Amino acid sequence: MKILILGGDGYLGWPTAMHLSAAGHDVAVVDNFLRRGMSIEVGAGSLTPLQSLQERVRAWREVTGNEIRPFVGDLTDPYFVDEVFKEVEPEGVIHYGEQPSAPYSMVDRKHAVLTQRNNVEGTLNVLYAMRDITPDAHLVKLGTMGEYGTPNIDIEEGYIEISHKGRNDVLPYPKLPGSMYHLSKVHDSHNIHFACRIWNLRASDLNQGVVYGIRTDETDLDERLCTRFDYDEVFGTALNRFCVQAVVGYPLSVYGKGGQTRGFLNIVDTMQCVRLAVENPAERGEFRVFNQFTEQFSVRDLAERVRQVGDDLGLNVIVDKVPDPRIEAEEHYYNAAHTKLLALGLQPHLLTDDVIAGLIEVIERYKDRILLEPITPKTRWDPRLT
Amino acid sequence: MKILILGGDGYLGWPTAMHLSAAGHDVAVVDNFLRRGMSIEVGAGSLTPLQSLQERVRAWREVTGNEIRPFVGDLTDPYFVDEVFKEVEPEGVIHYGEQPSAPYSMVDRKHAVLTQRNNVEGTLNVLYAMRDITPDAHLVKLGTMGEYGTPNIDIEEGYIEISHKGRNDVLPYPKLPGSMYHLSKVHDSHNIHFACRIWNLRASDLNQGVVYGIRTDETDLDERLCTRFDYDEVFGTALNRFCVQAVVGYPLSVYGKGGQTRGFLNIVDTMQCVRLAVENPAERGEFRVFNQFTEQFSVRDLAERVRQVGDDLGLNVIVDKVPDPRIEAEEHYYNAAHTKLLALGLQPHLLTDDVIAGLIEVIERYKDRILLEPITPKTRWDPRLT
Repeated sequence: MKILILGGDGYLGWPTAMHLSAAGHDVAVVDNFLRRGMSIEVGAGSLTPLQSLQERVRAWREVTGNEIRPFVGDLTDPYFVDEVFKEVEPEGVIHYGEQPSAPYSMVDRKHAVLTQRNNVEGTLNVLYAMRDITPDAHLVKLGTMGEYGTPNIDIEEGYIEISHKGRNDVLPYPKLPGSMYHLSKVHDSHNIHFACRIWNLRASDLNQGVVYGIRTDETDLDERLCTRFDYDEVFGTALNRFCVQAVVGYPLSVYGKGGQTRGFLNIVDTMQCVRLAVENPAERGEFRVFNQFTEQFSVRDLAERVRQVGDDLGLNVIVDKVPDPRIEAEEHYYNAAHTKLLALGLQPHLLTDDVIAGLIEVIERYKDRILLEPITPKTRWDPRLT
Repeated sequence: MKILILGGDGYLGWPTAMHLSAAGHDVAVVDNFLRRGMSIEVGAGSLTPLQSLQERVRAWREVTGNEIRPFVGDLTDPYFVDEVFKEVEPEGVIHYGEQPSAPYSMVDRKHAVLTQRNNVEGTLNVLYAMRDITPDAHLVKLGTMGEYGTPNIDIEEGYIEISHKGRNDVLPYPKLPGSMYHLSKVHDSHNIHFACRIWNLRASDLNQGVVYGIRTDETDLDERLCTRFDYDEVFGTALNRFCVQAVVGYPLSVYGKGGQTRGFLNIVDTMQCVRLAVENPAERGEFRVFNQFTEQFSVRDLAERVRQVGDDLGLNVIVDKVPDPRIEAEEHYYNAAHTKLLALGLQPHLLTDDVIAGLIEVIERYKDRILLEPITPKTRWDPRLT
């Protein structure tokens, strides 16, 4: 298939590009390096040393003989988006091309507006390009489990059947997003659903959990092919951050009570899920929603797992409860469905102690590159609270 | 109360400013005249001859002795928004300041992006100004019944209690908006709800039905105080447009089967509702949602009502079914709750034949100003369909 990957230079975008190229697809990637720039802005950096996109593409060609075509530009520029769609004529479009951090979106008004503008307008431009240039293409859009928040009932996959006053309907699952970033993904979901209903487009919204891990089959082929790995308070996610903290002897920073429970998955399962979604397209007019994660954990339990594995490896790991810089339920009910990707063939790689130990081992290889300053939680959901 | 009206030069904003000023409130208005410009853009115009905002304010002072303070600027400019909030220090903020037309938002990509950017970013700027400058102020935000779409169950006011797999929660009512404009209002609702949860702001979302009518107690005081009245296919709404069509002998354009059922209200009831909302503020942290309409009608029934009244007045009115330029259910279940504003004291002015005759009478006074060309439906939800 001809596949266009938006945000193809990022943590998940670049490994996905290689994974689908290795599987025999004809892959093109788009990126404007917003993500690299934001990392510089917050004074953080990738644990792994990153090659430029051009160098990555060259290395991939050298190692595998496969071409990945890079396009550099901004999805909020409608002319650029149209040119790429005309040039590539994609059958599948995988859309990672958004500002991906909740804390970044909560820094201040400017960051909130940037996040919603960048994400919502980029996706609108993609929808119009699909309508007018590739109406039969399938959009695989990365959403987030955080769109749902933490309701007191089971979370379903995108829709819920509601019986109300003697009548029934299947309606979009209500959303209680927890940051300006998560809100931008909710806005995207509504916009894409509308485009499917009105223009008969086909789309799959992948409401992804928290991704952990650093290696995939393809990044392992050559060090130049590694993906980025963030461990700072703005872009690092729970498990990845805890493992870095364990390696450098920084207390694992559990926010508040630590009962915050979320869905998690290994980066190698992201590769599988996205490939399953793109190779099994939605129907014309269908807005399909998958919850993309394999296991639920509380943040407290994850920290404890890392502490135990770290101790076994001879690290002296401390778990530290810090005041929650976010405003969120610190203890809550959580039970989210995630069967649709399993039904398509997903073979989960669950979180074992070996997986944690493997992650810690890779981090130790790059230990000298770790910056301590950006690890400390600073970005608060309400800056008026001290 | 010190009340700031955003979009205070529009169809509803200007009469609201006068209504609250007459009631003894200290009123300031903000507008950037986007609405006047868009009317020129689509080659339409107001039935009524409009004075400039400055002239309106002068006339209001002359007639009543009351001051309405005008501020001219764009809500997407954060510095302007902050300056106004610092200067006015509002206790109540009534937010009409958005691109208000579904067809306008569906013209093309540029109009869709303009609508979502203008509406979403303007509201974000207002939320941040409230958080940082007037955290105790109450936001009264104009939403739309169109956020709900036409689900197959009863529509409730903002929230719905869901029983699911043995558990219960009260969650935001699912949204199925029918245009890029309606989507922008859904995005606003999610953003405002979040701001109430996280920053403890207070807000009322008024999901308004279709407004008809042209006169209020205050516009009647002086011809210079009249409000705008749109009858074109982009900005005119169902009943107002039908009455203009009846006067000029243009067949009443019912879209498709005409079974599209919506909530409607008289402009004098908009005045009442908004005043009730602002004078009875939500609690800190509360995101209150009211469905703001008084009666449900199908478009087909409304056209028939106008035909009968028109015939009684000696007009020869024809009802014409034209292909629906929108993509929407032309026959559907519709039953929407609207009790919360009644509980606050709303006294509805229902749609009688006399009300329709009165509207037709005012339109006849301005008959010579009516442009025929902009009446014909042109803006299609899918321009690929011919």
